[in-house]
Amino acid sequence: MAADCGSVDFPVSVVLPAAGSGERMGLATPKQFCSVLGRPLLYYTLQAFLNVPWVREVIVVVSQDWLQETSDILQSFSPTTRSKVRVVSGAATRHRSIWNGLKAVGSSTDVVVLHDAVRPLVEEDFLKRIVLAAKEQGAAGAVRPLISTVVSPTKDGSMLDHTLDRSQYQASEMPQAFRYPAIMEAYHNCSEHDLDFGTECLHLVQKYAGISAKLLLGPSSLWKVTLRKDLYAIEGVLKEEHCRKVAMLSDQQSTVSQRLHRGFQEQLSSEVLHINHQEQLATICQTVTTLILTNSFPCDLKKTRDRVSQVWEGATSGDSTSRVLVLLFCGEAPALDAMPVIFKFTQELAKESMEHSVVVYSVYVDSQASSDVVNRAVGMVISLIRQRDPALSGQMFVAQ
Amino acid sequence: MAADCGSVDFPVSVVLPAAGSGERMGLATPKQFCSVLGRPLLYYTLQAFLNVPWVREVIVVVSQDWLQETSDILQSFSPTTRSKVRVVSGAATRHRSIWNGLKAVGSSTDVVVLHDAVRPLVEEDFLKRIVLAAKEQGAAGAVRPLISTVVSPTKDGSMLDHTLDRSQYQASEMPQAFRYPAIMEAYHNCSEHDLDFGTECLHLVQKYAGISAKLLLGPSSLWKVTLRKDLYAIEGVLKEEHCRKVAMLSDQQSTVSQRLHRGFQEQLSSEVLHINHQEQLATICQTVTTLILTNSFPCDLKKTRDRVSQVWEGATSGDSTSRVLVLLFCGEAPALDAMPVIFKFTQELAKESMEHSVVVYSVYVDSQASSDVVNRAVGMVISLIRQRDPALSGQMFVAQ
Repeated sequence: MAADCGSVDFPVSVVLPAAGSGERMGLATPKQFCSVLGRPLLYYTLQAFLNVPWVREVIVVVSQDWLQETSDILQSFSPTTRSKVRVVSGAATRHRSIWNGLKAVGSSTDVVVLHDAVRPLVEEDFLKRIVLAAKEQGAAGAVRPLISTVVSPTKDGSMLDHTLDRSQYQASEMPQAFRYPAIMEAYHNCSEHDLDFGTECLHLVQKYAGISAKLLLGPSSLWKVTLRKDLYAIEGVLKEEHCRKVAMLSDQQSTVSQRLHRGFQEQLSSEVLHINHQEQLATICQTVTTLILTNSFPCDLKKTRDRVSQVWEGATSGDSTSRVLVLLFCGEAPALDAMPVIFKFTQELAKESMEHSVVVYSVYVDSQASSDVVNRAVGMVISLIRQRDPALSGQMFVAQ
Repeated sequence: MAADCGSVDFPVSVVLPAAGSGERMGLATPKQFCSVLGRPLLYYTLQAFLNVPWVREVIVVVSQDWLQETSDILQSFSPTTRSKVRVVSGAATRHRSIWNGLKAVGSSTDVVVLHDAVRPLVEEDFLKRIVLAAKEQGAAGAVRPLISTVVSPTKDGSMLDHTLDRSQYQASEMPQAFRYPAIMEAYHNCSEHDLDFGTECLHLVQKYAGISAKLLLGPSSLWKVTLRKDLYAIEGVLKEEHCRKVAMLSDQQSTVSQRLHRGFQEQLSSEVLHINHQEQLATICQTVTTLILTNSFPCDLKKTRDRVSQVWEGATSGDSTSRVLVLLFCGEAPALDAMPVIFKFTQELAKESMEHSVVVYSVYVDSQASSDVVNRAVGMVISLIRQRDPALSGQMFVAQ
């Protein structure tokens, strides 16, 4: 497809309507501000756009009541990154909020992307295709196959009138993109009724600017957080991401640490980087958020602590991604003897690491462990790095 | 509504098509057999229908390759319960599989319910309304508001042709119900093309049996597991259920145990039953799957073990619901001294409890704990009972 080949060498702005009240959730908090793994949903959506180098500015439209919360979210980003964001006040309906956002867009902007704050999984490749299609065609939107058959009820809503042929229709999703003058023309010309009750910008642009949008089949990750259960879904997807890339550093080449490493590779179905040199570590931890450090035990815990602090010092400056550190002790001593020392050490390290948003766990495995025990240790570590649960930070676990 | 008032005093059968391959998941396993909290999704859907006293039989339609797995799932139910289930072989398309299922329905059946194996959250109240509406009208189906706008693309699929007015349409969901003769007539009369490409039974019954279905707005829990992320959503909803009802038994009325109890009530936003007598316990554990036992420490651990085994003996006979036991030790001794004893005890108890599908954790709180530490202990326990993670069973946690 032609749209795949180009590059985005023109100014692109993003408007993120985030002023909805989220009544469907049955929660007091609007869904874009609901917490997922300790952060509001809006944080993830913003992060996705701010990671795209060719996005020049992001206009977030929020209701008055949530201005403070939004400004708190922006503090999680570095000053350079957050300088790309502008926050404007929302209005009573979705279309009026978008209109407010559009009016705040820089005048030199070529293409405007509209997205939902409650669709945090934005893939850069697809975003680029939408933007290039809009540049060419004037308007472009993501579509997905319908999940359910669509039916038309009788006037009173109680009976089936007719069923739509599922193959003839698609669900309109986000992101959408528009040439800036085209979407401005549509909003200028549309009626008050459209602003109050409309749901679809592609429709406005077709009706009021005479442009039929290009439709692009989007990835399945485009879904929208609508109900409470969708927060669990997002949480699960983010946890999957946690395990995508794991770094493992050994202070030894013991049999048990090799068996554990093999276990992780088999069961994680993700990349496990085996690192042998401390120097590599700090670099790798810029991109990897899960680190497993194996130690023999007894060992010099002061050395372990020094290694750990070096790592986070380099890696965590200026960002607040949550990280997990698992200290894997392969012990010569019985677990019960090792416990007091390791437990105390883990608690202290967890306290120190809190300010870097790092959770810390220790897992103790006997160096003579049977393969059953090694498997259980692997399962335990995978569960811990997936959950990344701050409530359990500082705890010591024993594989038995 | 009239349909709300009646009772179901006629024979009802359920047909559960579960023969799909689940290509959309991008997984090797069809989604109805994907594991959620240690059980295949189909287990939960079956359980929901088997819990409804007026459902006479459930016909599960599965593909040849999954007959063994299905029969394994049935073993999780008691003999009486699983005698209501019949398993029949599926066919190449959804409609052909349903047709196979319908032919296996008992001839005296009055109303047949069609449902998806991948919609495990079935609410009895709504099911009843659908069944009564079908009895009256001949056919009834659940609908939900559309989540996305529906668009009609041009013939080649690449451009927007027109947008549907969202307020005029609804998404057709499951369950649906039909008078048995009506749905049989529809399948008898429909074309091969319908059997191969059709997606909607309401449409078949309208076209081939002349019956327009009653449409009932269903609860939001009717959604269908379609993508991998939906498995996380189901998992989250089931975990929410875990915390719905918690029983707490204290061997003492110490200040710290009272403070913990208050903490659970505040933070769980669910029912926390405070039990003071061992006798109540076995009865309550028939319905409650989360039990917190507080002990002072040092204490007579043999007594604790006896109490625990009495509980599960009564509660777990003949079913395999997963349960969680948290032993909350309020200690006079420093945590490090208590550790070896409690750790060993927890590991042993966890091993013994495995056969009852019970996971066991110990949490140690100093009896002089500050309110910060008590809060952290509460957070830790809530996290443990929510996750109910078998990988961490047998571990000891220390609140600090």
